[in-house]
Parts: sequence; C-alpha cells; structure tokens
Amino acid sequence: AETKKIAVIAGDGIGPEVVAEAEKIIRRTEEVFGYSFTTEHALFGGIAIDEKGTPLPEETLQVCKSADAVLLGAVGGPKWDNNSKELRPETGLLGIRKELGLFSNLRPAVVFDCLKDASTLKPEVLEGTDLMVVRELTGGIYFGEKFRREGAGGEEAVDTCAYSTAEVERIVHQAFEIAQKRRKKLASVDKANVLETSRLWRETVNRIAPQYPDVELEHVLVDNCAMQLLRRPSSFDVIVTENMFGDILSDEAAMLTGSIGMLSSASMGEGAFGLYEPVHGSAPDIAGQGLANPIATILSVALMYRLTFGYEDAADAIERAVAEVLDEGHRTADIAVDKSKALSTTEMGDLIAAAI
Amino acid sequence: AETKKIAVIAGDGIGPEVVAEAEKIIRRTEEVFGYSFTTEHALFGGIAIDEKGTPLPEETLQVCKSADAVLLGAVGGPKWDNNSKELRPETGLLGIRKELGLFSNLRPAVVFDCLKDASTLKPEVLEGTDLMVVRELTGGIYFGEKFRREGAGGEEAVDTCAYSTAEVERIVHQAFEIAQKRRKKLASVDKANVLETSRLWRETVNRIAPQYPDVELEHVLVDNCAMQLLRRPSSFDVIVTENMFGDILSDEAAMLTGSIGMLSSASMGEGAFGLYEPVHGSAPDIAGQGLANPIATILSVALMYRLTFGYEDAADAIERAVAEVLDEGHRTADIAVDKSKALSTTEMGDLIAAAI
Ligand SMILES: CC(C)[C@H](C(=O)O)[C@@H](O)C(=O)O
Ligand SMILES: CC(C)[C@H](C(=O)O)[C@@H](O)C(=O)O
Repeated sequence: AETKKIAVIAGDGIGPEVVAEAEKIIRRTEEVFGYSFTTEHALFGGIAIDEKGTPLPEETLQVCKSADAVLLGAVGGPKWDNNSKELRPETGLLGIRKELGLFSNLRPAVVFDCLKDASTLKPEVLEGTDLMVVRELTGGIYFGEKFRREGAGGEEAVDTCAYSTAEVERIVHQAFEIAQKRRKKLASVDKANVLETSRLWRETVNRIAPQYPDVELEHVLVDNCAMQLLRRPSSFDVIVTENMFGDILSDEAAMLTGSIGMLSSASMGEGAFGLYEPVHGSAPDIAGQGLANPIATILSVALMYRLTFGYEDAADAIERAVAEVLDEGHRTADIAVDKSKALSTTEMGDLIAAAI
Repeated sequence: AETKKIAVIAGDGIGPEVVAEAEKIIRRTEEVFGYSFTTEHALFGGIAIDEKGTPLPEETLQVCKSADAVLLGAVGGPKWDNNSKELRPETGLLGIRKELGLFSNLRPAVVFDCLKDASTLKPEVLEGTDLMVVRELTGGIYFGEKFRREGAGGEEAVDTCAYSTAEVERIVHQAFEIAQKRRKKLASVDKANVLETSRLWRETVNRIAPQYPDVELEHVLVDNCAMQLLRRPSSFDVIVTENMFGDILSDEAAMLTGSIGMLSSASMGEGAFGLYEPVHGSAPDIAGQGLANPIATILSVALMYRLTFGYEDAADAIERAVAEVLDEGHRTADIAVDKSKALSTTEMGDLIAAAI
C-alpha cells in the first residue's frame, strides 16, 4: 500500500506518553496489515510556547498540511494558564482548527462495558447509550470579532457570533450523512427562540432535511438538550450543533457515559484529512509517571484509520484488541478497581499491540 | 400588616390551574399569619397574543410595575411556536425581564426526599445536592444586536454578546451575598479561554472577591461545569454565570435532581421586587385536566414571602406544609408511583393549605 504520512503532535502533560503508545500501535498495524506510514513530530501547545515562543509555530502548521492526518496527544497546563492570549495553548488549538479548515468535530460518546459502573448515571438509564455529537468547530462566537469599549456601565466586552448559510450547510450535510450510517436519527440543537444565528441554523436544517428522507429529524433547544441528555441518553443517535453549544453538550455527553478517559474524537474538514485526539486533557498532575491511560489515544488511531484512510480491517483490529485486553481484566490506574494491580502506560500499550 | 400587592400572571397551559392553588395558599397565609395581600390578574404570553395581539400588553407591564411582586404560572405552547418573533410568548418573557429590570435569576436545585429515586443519577452521587444557580438575566447574547447580512457564504446571521463591568458587578455581588448566607462556596462559570466577555467577567469576579473573604471562590469553565455537575453535584453551593450559560446549566442542574416538577425560581432586580415562577413549563398536553402538580408554584409563593416580603414565618409554614403532605404519601400523577391513587391539582392544593 501507498505510504501515508501522519503528523504527530505529542503536546503537553501526559500527551507524549499516550502518543508513544499510539505510535506503537501504528507500527504494529504496519506489520500485521502491511500498511505503511511515516510519522513526523511537531511542537504544539505549551511546549511550543516554551521552545518557540508561540503555541502554533509555522513549521508545525506546515508539517500538518503536508500530512494525510494529524494525531494529537493533549495540550495545556497550569504553567501557561496565566499567559497573555497569544501565548496560551488554547490559542494554538483554535488556530490549528481554523488553519487546517477543521470545521467538524466528531465526538462519539459510548459506554464501555467495563466502565458501566463508573458513570454517575444509573446503569438502566445508560443502557444502550451510543451517541455522536457533531460540533461545528470553526465558526460562531469562538471566531467572531471580540473587543472592549467604553460604555455607560464602564468598560464593556463584546463577542460576536456569526454563521453563514454555507457554514451551516456543510456541517449539517455531514451530520445527516453520519446519521444515515448509524441509527438514522438526527437531533439538531439550537436556541431558535432567542438567537438569530439559531434561526438561520434551523431554517438551513429544514431546507436540507428533505434530501435525507430516511433520517428522522428533531429540533431540540439547547437548554432542553442539556436536560434530555440526562433523562434519556440512549434515545439520541447523532446530535448536530454550533460551536459553543457543542463544546458544552459534547462534554456533558462524554461525562455521562462514565467512560470519558477512553473516548476519542476526530476533527474533519472537506476531504478525508482529519485531526484525531483523545477527549481527555493533558493531566499535568500525573504526567511523566507512567500512570496515564493510552486507550483513548489508541482508539483515536482506529478512528483515523477508518475516517481518513478507510483501513477498516486495521481499525476493527485495534478496537477488538482494546476490548479483548479490557475483557481480560487489564486496567490502568484511572479505571482500576484494585489500584495495586494497575498497569503502566507502556504495559497497557504493549498488551494491546500484542492483541492485534 | 401593610397590604401588599401581587400581580398574578396565570399564562398558558397548566398555568391557570397551578396559579389558582398558589392563590389558595396566599389566602390561607392571610388567615393564619394576619398578612394582607391584594392580587391583580394580568394577561401574558400566548393568551395575551390571542386576546391583545401581543405577548406583553402595556397594561400587564403596568400591573406588574404597580405591584410588590409578580407570580407567574407558565407561558407558551405549540399553538404559538410558529408565530413571527413579535408574536411569540418567549418574546414576552424576554420583554418582561428587561422592562422590570430583573437581572438576576435564582434557580435553586434541591432534591426532594420522596423524589430521590426519580433522578437518573445514582442516589449516592446525589446525596446532599443543594445548589443555587444565579443566572444573569438581562444581558449577554440574549439582548445584544441581532441581524442578517449578505456575505461570501450566502446569507449570514449575527448575534452580539456584550457585558459591561456594571452588569457583571451587580450580579456577582448578589451571588457572593447569597453564598454568604449558604455554605459559603461560589463557582463562577465562564469561557475565559475563548470569550472576551468571559475575560471581563472573570476579572470583575476577581476584583470583587476580596470583599467577601469568607466565601471560597472557584472559576470553572462552562464545558467543565457541565461535566462537574454530573460528577460531583453535591460539591456545588452557589454557581454564578452569564445569561446563555445559565440557561443551559440551570436546566441541567434542575434535571439532575430528579425533582424538576417541584422546583421554583425567582427573578430579582435591584430591590426586593421579584418575579416568581415554577421551573417547569406550561405542559399543554395535560392542561385543563386537573393533572398538574401545583407544588412548584406553591413553593414559588414561599420564595416570594422570603425574598420580597421577609415573611419568614409564612415561608417556613408553606415549605413545612408541602413536606408534611408529601411525607404522608400524597402525590399528584407526575410524581405518583401508583397513578390510580394520584390526587388532582386542587386536592393537592387543599391538603397543603390545610396543613399550614
Ligand atoms: C481549550 C478550548 C479552547 C477547547 C474549546 O472550547 O473548543 C476545548 O474545550 C475543546 O472542547 O476542545
Ligand atoms: C423561553 C426562553 C426564552 C427562556 C430563556 O432561554 O431564558 C427559558 O428557557 C428560560 O430559561 O426561562
């Protein structure tokens, strides 16, 4: 097979440790399935601020642009939290999304059998929960004009939330297509009773919907969605929403599964190019100690194989290997009941690699 | 005692039924405690659209302004959902908040003992949950400039989110004061890593905090808050946040208690004037059948007595009466395990009145 290039951004905190295990898995799938990858590492986030004076160096952007996909560990930490805006890891994240045109963030929220009890929700409520939040990622209030001004009430701050019809269309089409490949249900979330951007959003969804007659569509107000996720999580299939609402709801959905440490995500643009990363953060408190759970990052590789490369066999093999290792009772500290038997990051990576 | 005036807005759906029971309780507290109230009814919401051609008629506003407090049932329903913006019940709600200067929405989220099992959260997680969301109610993206324009991506919609220092200060002071009377913990929720309004919010909170050294303050990002509410609800005391975030988080918090049908809320301005209403909606599907649960509205009267009038004795008596009636096993259909034994709306109101 043709050699594919993966840009690898280890990032901060536990990022380097979990990414190292994911690379082990990439190598293993080369051996087993005959695929071929080159990987190129690049600096990003806090470490890039420290070494290059900016969270998103131009070289890093070039490495990503020259690659077929990007694997990201995690970025950020208290060290950079009080920096000015241009010197914060988050600014790099927003920048890379915009520069790479990653307008769609896919956040699957599934329940891992071995973690059913880790959720704060009752098991019978969680039963069958398997949803995907499709979050618009390069528009809305995140990227609108921001400024300060003097007003009657002293200094004023302003954020602008804008959406064009074209921006809504492309993400909504993608969400409908994803729903068609799943349980054929789409919930479009907005605040159309208050926001103009939400009214445009809803009009656009309604105009597109007839092109997907096999998908059952419902409109849900964002406040109601925050409630329904708690009340009936298993009734959702695909949820599509704008950037800010998606930030909040995808985290709520991830947390209610109880499996947040195991969830992966994909950020996609127009074509097959994508950036893949675990949902969890950089966990600076446990960094460098071999305590991190590499599974979410390893599963991000499976997602990359499926969505960017179409390597279904290798994606299936990774997911099966993870399930097998968990079924055998192996656990890292974060998900272990008996912490004294917990595996290290590399031990978990080795076991999963061996199971492929 | 001086005669106080209460403006009564029954509204739509089950609104008139639950408000009638709340008025029964008002009369009963006059008998028992010697307080004296006049009530004046006014049209608002869907019924005002039907009868007066606008959700918030000028007379209604005048009735509210001439009163010491407002009791609101519920507004809205499918009948008006497809109306143009000016003819929608929600527009009336936003209008009354702005016109009456109700900048602070207090949403207590508590767990009723008899409803512990109604929550989708595990009882041990819920144990001890008793929090209050203080939501800014007359600023932010709800009230900013909204418009459409033509752009490169076709028609564009724009919403503007603005906050002045003065707007943030008044709500934050109120939240600190409320926290001082409770468990002395305040979580300020923002998205300071992305939004300019959130950065102003956080700066303002930090500037005010030293005036309340007895209150323990934490800053929580909105996405993280949506998660932490699920993971550790009982660790929150008071949560203060801007309008849009408050809309989402207060509903999430209410739903996780499992007691959403029993929760009341207050919207306050500068002085003691307030508007009190149940958290639940107008439930058009069960309207007019005597099935509605009047408890949230009755508890809104208790909140009114406490916050507007300082009638602690009567407020306590109402809350005790509700607890007693529930302890005796009386239930309306929405909270009954055995629906065949469920009480009607008026029967529940009568029992609570009798218990005062
Ligand atoms: C770090 C922050 C800017 C980012 C966001 O809000 O998009 C994060 O919360 C996420 O969801 O990826
Ligand atoms: C009806 C709607 C405009 C309103 C809001 O968003 O404020 C409602 O959801 C609420 O919370 O009172």
